[in-house]
Amino acid sequence: MKRSMLHCRSCGAVYDADAVFRCACGEPLDLDWTESGIDEDGRDLPSRYGAFFPFEPGEWLSLGEGNTPLVPLSRLAGELGLSSLVVKNESANPTWSFKDRGTAACIAHARALGFTRVGTVSTGNMAASVAAYGAAAGLETVILVKGDLAEEKMAPIAIYGPRLIRVQGAYDGLYAESIRIGAERGIYFMNSDVPFRVAGSRTIAFEIFEQTDGCLPDWVIVPTSAGGNIRGIINGFMDLKAAGLADRIPGFICAQAAGCSPIATAFARSDEHISPFPAPHTIAHAIENPFPPSGNRVLLELRSRTWHALAATEDEIVRAQADMARSGLFGQPAAAVPLATLRQARAKGIVKEGERVALVFTGSGLKYTAAFASHRLHWEDCGLEELEERLK
Amino acid sequence: MKRSMLHCRSCGAVYDADAVFRCACGEPLDLDWTESGIDEDGRDLPSRYGAFFPFEPGEWLSLGEGNTPLVPLSRLAGELGLSSLVVKNESANPTWSFKDRGTAACIAHARALGFTRVGTVSTGNMAASVAAYGAAAGLETVILVKGDLAEEKMAPIAIYGPRLIRVQGAYDGLYAESIRIGAERGIYFMNSDVPFRVAGSRTIAFEIFEQTDGCLPDWVIVPTSAGGNIRGIINGFMDLKAAGLADRIPGFICAQAAGCSPIATAFARSDEHISPFPAPHTIAHAIENPFPPSGNRVLLELRSRTWHALAATEDEIVRAQADMARSGLFGQPAAAVPLATLRQARAKGIVKEGERVALVFTGSGLKYTAAFASHRLHWEDCGLEELEERLK
Repeated sequence: MKRSMLHCRSCGAVYDADAVFRCACGEPLDLDWTESGIDEDGRDLPSRYGAFFPFEPGEWLSLGEGNTPLVPLSRLAGELGLSSLVVKNESANPTWSFKDRGTAACIAHARALGFTRVGTVSTGNMAASVAAYGAAAGLETVILVKGDLAEEKMAPIAIYGPRLIRVQGAYDGLYAESIRIGAERGIYFMNSDVPFRVAGSRTIAFEIFEQTDGCLPDWVIVPTSAGGNIRGIINGFMDLKAAGLADRIPGFICAQAAGCSPIATAFARSDEHISPFPAPHTIAHAIENPFPPSGNRVLLELRSRTWHALAATEDEIVRAQADMARSGLFGQPAAAVPLATLRQARAKGIVKEGERVALVFTGSGLKYTAAFASHRLHWEDCGLEELEERLK
Repeated sequence: MKRSMLHCRSCGAVYDADAVFRCACGEPLDLDWTESGIDEDGRDLPSRYGAFFPFEPGEWLSLGEGNTPLVPLSRLAGELGLSSLVVKNESANPTWSFKDRGTAACIAHARALGFTRVGTVSTGNMAASVAAYGAAAGLETVILVKGDLAEEKMAPIAIYGPRLIRVQGAYDGLYAESIRIGAERGIYFMNSDVPFRVAGSRTIAFEIFEQTDGCLPDWVIVPTSAGGNIRGIINGFMDLKAAGLADRIPGFICAQAAGCSPIATAFARSDEHISPFPAPHTIAHAIENPFPPSGNRVLLELRSRTWHALAATEDEIVRAQADMARSGLFGQPAAAVPLATLRQARAKGIVKEGERVALVFTGSGLKYTAAFASHRLHWEDCGLEELEERLK
């Protein structure tokens, strides 16, 4: 790995990128790396976008993450009065969520630094992703989950063979506690907004840039929980602009569920900092983080431009999930939150008629089948002999 | 759509490709289309491989199917004494199985012919795929499933909003009955081995060819149920050779579950035709077809070269599913059958030391979570205060 630095945009501190995960001031860190360049012959992430990372060839273990489709939804674009509406389908990743990009970058970092143990704190997408990549890399992999996580949620993580631990007690403190223990015990905890996970998410921006032939969307709407993914995508467009590849940065909308919307709430109130969201509850479990570790940073990013944060109600999320499925894309509820907030943004005039919008579709609908109960699903029964009559 | 023909390799009959689904002799039909060419600037299937199809631009509606990763499994390659072992990860498709390629081709065909109603007969992957693409294309979509299909299997199909019908009575006759009713009622039934579904599966071969830089694997191992997918992949390599792009065709192994192995059984017995497999039962439900409509055709393809058909036991399938997950790829049980049969092929000397092998990994492990019950999955519980001690 080439020498690289991390810096804190809040207090200005700078660190060597040797397994520092967070600024001493409490805010998250960003990778400071000015090399860039897209290798158009590169078929996988490390060969195509390797120049944007400080890794040496061979440090990045790819399971085929990224290179996901950008799917046009022309019917919905028409209904919403947009000139284009595209969906970045991150459910086409190896563990069927966007997390694989950041996990792959963190595994590369961990390998470069000589770690033999990796881990994460997660209840869903990230747990499966780290378990898969840790297994592929032959690293001892520790996955910490909530003490009350149901058995049916454990199996899709356990199948990859990690050391899987349900931790009883306050889950809130587990993020920081894992980083502390990891530093003492030599475990690289690649949690939700650690610098290299955020750096990996930049590749979503690189691909949108390439897939739109440089004709960027006016808006990118990102489901937001910890805040690492939206930060990464913003950073990706900033890096493209700094490299002279892109001529501008799209607008961003931070999309949250009204049932857990610490960033959107602080944004609407013009608060300087986020506050813990009381009694969080939403069908969009994958983005149910009541006190996101990158919340303040995301809030600052939104404020420093004329960007937005919006929150969708449960009904709006369920409707958006159904609408997307009826356009061929079945996502977990969190993945539908961008469409739900897009409707609000059109109603409020934030997104204007004729604009171009990209939605980040974060994970597969097969990840959270309990959501089926919120839909009115229809089917009929008939005998073989009646079939012809029924299909008249 | 350009004029194209279908032909029967069994009896030699030739048909116009205007919605004939099967030869009058009872055997399946193949698309007869000699144009070819890969557009290296094409980012999606229709733009990259469009020359291999008789469609006009705009007839193919893409949800981003195909363009799936080819993932090297170096640890397993080493264990098995192979110079390379790669996995074509078809779970990275829009509905998380290989079916989307054939569905997209059939939808293009249906649109070109002016159909407003499409359908399929399926219990799993294909039902979800056709429901998704039918919805995206705005076509009335009829999905016929087994009368006893559990509600939990209905929801992931119903979410796309098709007309979903559970048909009571003999499921065996439903394939032929649906084609007959479809012809009368104007419904394009894109069942498991109809000509354009098979033609769509050729793109797996095109991608393997490109992803291996023309250095083809010695063997391609394909989980086989109806037989449409393996036929398509074989045809794809034949088309590449006919076009002068590839210099040879890889060897093929038809991989079945011992609990439902009509093709492997007929192959082992040197029978000329397949027979209905009695009392089929396997964890690999996605390939549990006791009397596959392309069975005789696949048998002939295997025999006309020195190819093979092998069947894996339930234990072998479960072990292979776990082994692949521990390499980062969690597939439905059917997707693990190729690895299970590869072990046999190595033991029998069919696949030799130092050879290169590609496994077709047909669908996501999230598709069939009942398989978790066959695995010994481990996790532990601990309190937050004990965590540091546990992670020593």
